[in-house]
Amino acid sequence: MSELTFLRGRTIMDDRILQNFLAGCRDGVFTHIKSYLHKAAAGLPSSMKTCVLDYPYRRGKALRPALLVIFCGACGGRPTAALRLGAAYQLLEDWGIGRDDLLDGALMRRGKPALQQLYGAARAINSLDMLHVFVFDMLYSYCGLSPALYGKAHTLFTRASVVTLGGQHLDIEARDIPLADFTPRMYYRIAARKTAFYTVTAPCLLGLAAAGRGPAERDIAAFGEALGTAFQIIDDVLDVENDGAGGFGKAPGNDIMEAKRTLVAAEAWRRLPPSRRKKMAVFYALPAGARTAAAAAALRRDILASGAPEACRRRALRLSAKAELILRDKLLPHMRPRYAGMLAAFVRRLSSRSV
Amino acid sequence: MSELTFLRGRTIMDDRILQNFLAGCRDGVFTHIKSYLHKAAAGLPSSMKTCVLDYPYRRGKALRPALLVIFCGACGGRPTAALRLGAAYQLLEDWGIGRDDLLDGALMRRGKPALQQLYGAARAINSLDMLHVFVFDMLYSYCGLSPALYGKAHTLFTRASVVTLGGQHLDIEARDIPLADFTPRMYYRIAARKTAFYTVTAPCLLGLAAAGRGPAERDIAAFGEALGTAFQIIDDVLDVENDGAGGFGKAPGNDIMEAKRTLVAAEAWRRLPPSRRKKMAVFYALPAGARTAAAAAALRRDILASGAPEACRRRALRLSAKAELILRDKLLPHMRPRYAGMLAAFVRRLSSRSV
Repeated sequence: MSELTFLRGRTIMDDRILQNFLAGCRDGVFTHIKSYLHKAAAGLPSSMKTCVLDYPYRRGKALRPALLVIFCGACGGRPTAALRLGAAYQLLEDWGIGRDDLLDGALMRRGKPALQQLYGAARAINSLDMLHVFVFDMLYSYCGLSPALYGKAHTLFTRASVVTLGGQHLDIEARDIPLADFTPRMYYRIAARKTAFYTVTAPCLLGLAAAGRGPAERDIAAFGEALGTAFQIIDDVLDVENDGAGGFGKAPGNDIMEAKRTLVAAEAWRRLPPSRRKKMAVFYALPAGARTAAAAAALRRDILASGAPEACRRRALRLSAKAELILRDKLLPHMRPRYAGMLAAFVRRLSSRSV
Repeated sequence: MSELTFLRGRTIMDDRILQNFLAGCRDGVFTHIKSYLHKAAAGLPSSMKTCVLDYPYRRGKALRPALLVIFCGACGGRPTAALRLGAAYQLLEDWGIGRDDLLDGALMRRGKPALQQLYGAARAINSLDMLHVFVFDMLYSYCGLSPALYGKAHTLFTRASVVTLGGQHLDIEARDIPLADFTPRMYYRIAARKTAFYTVTAPCLLGLAAAGRGPAERDIAAFGEALGTAFQIIDDVLDVENDGAGGFGKAPGNDIMEAKRTLVAAEAWRRLPPSRRKKMAVFYALPAGARTAAAAAALRRDILASGAPEACRRRALRLSAKAELILRDKLLPHMRPRYAGMLAAFVRRLSSRSV
């Protein structure tokens, strides 16, 4: 990626070192999550415990905790001190994807049936609420934060939740908007709130808080919005490209079956010939039960042939380039070389989702 | 109530004074809730704000905050200092009843359509999660607690949530148990976790924490379980007796329509003649959509005629008497006369639900 050439001579990481770091970070995160949950969930009715522990024990990629830890290190803080905070943040994500799956009626997650598919909606809702309680309890009782850092972390966990839930609300509202009226502008507004803040901005701000010093918050926010939106766009593109053969962990055509208002969908609608366009709009207006897998598969072929995925990738690339410029000009000057290099390499992988 | 005669000469409150206190406490609680939410919900999408504020603005009776404040006063603490804590606890209840209504498919709450009836399940789930975040945020950022008291309060809010959600899980599981196999013992186990802890034990423990000294926790726990279970039994009896004429705030036959496994239902099943008993068991095994209002109304007449409500009232009376003995022998000796008298009067009203 040419955008990062400027980093090469200076701080860019050997890829193997980054991979080792990410693997170690992921192991550390899950050790802490297991250690916390082992005690916290001990008194639950046993069938409830199974449901509460299900998603955390599927072990996500722990990208957000890794970003938090690396950002903390880059700002001059001790990464090991940020690891428990990262683990609590991963638990927040495990809760978040669980409720996302519930609201989307998703079929699969991390290669297995989604929570509510396994346990039914009532048990899933109840267990997700329990997980949500555990997130705030882990932050308070397990992370070992000083009162001042706890205050900052609590405020950021709250802010991440409030922003994300607000984005989720906009996303729910968007499902009622005819596809023809769903604009890229609406998509960006949702992606900024629903994905970018909790995926990039909040982990960076938590890393900054743990370090105690670093770049300005407004620069982190601009960086996070650009990178996080690129991340979401690529996620949507990968979803439509997923044919079930790779390790994507979701069923092919997942977003289409859920009639998600994505940038790919908006762009495809604009590019399709009128007859196909109408067919697409009709499908996206159907209630969940009325969408058939066969129609979704045909639509997926149309979308892939429309050129929309490529257009979205170009858009994501522009956003990534913007993020990398902010990184170079506003963030890295306030950072320590070693972790700054790892941060730059990680950002490159995040923006292309090759991690 | 003869059980409280022992208090008469000593500390029992004039009923008017208690009523005034409860009204003032309720006003104070809602002033704080409004003041907190006004700021916290300011940045939400406006249609989401409507949904998030809906239940809190319906103004519950604020019985649990009142118990918290009175208990704090009785233990020698300053009731005004406990009021904000009580307001955060009321917000926890507003969240709790919202999710209860969602899981039960309830029709009405506080005289209006239930949350998910008004906004649909997706918006309701999303807004309830937001309210849940606000509960923990209000506790941290609004209540003005010292670090030590915040720690105790946070732990108790967490414990109340964990115990209640565990009870909710048992309640969900019980829906799959044939009515013939649902025993009073199962009911007591659910009521202790789902109702008693968060209705009585936790508010008292929070009042104790705010005061800093008072009776032993184990005595409060025994008191809370007896009183809270009596409270739930009477609640179930009132639900079946509700003919829609009073100010009960729910549709007649609400629990029957939801096929709730209550003590009234278990007792009625045991008392009905075989043919009616079978009809009842069949109704309670139907899926939600298959239960008709006409069948529920006929069943309600059977239950009322079975003698089950009276048997449940007798059971509740025995539990209340137990609670009042613990109050007299284990709690009041550690309390200040003025608020202790108010506590005794309030307990009497809670156990008969004449408040």
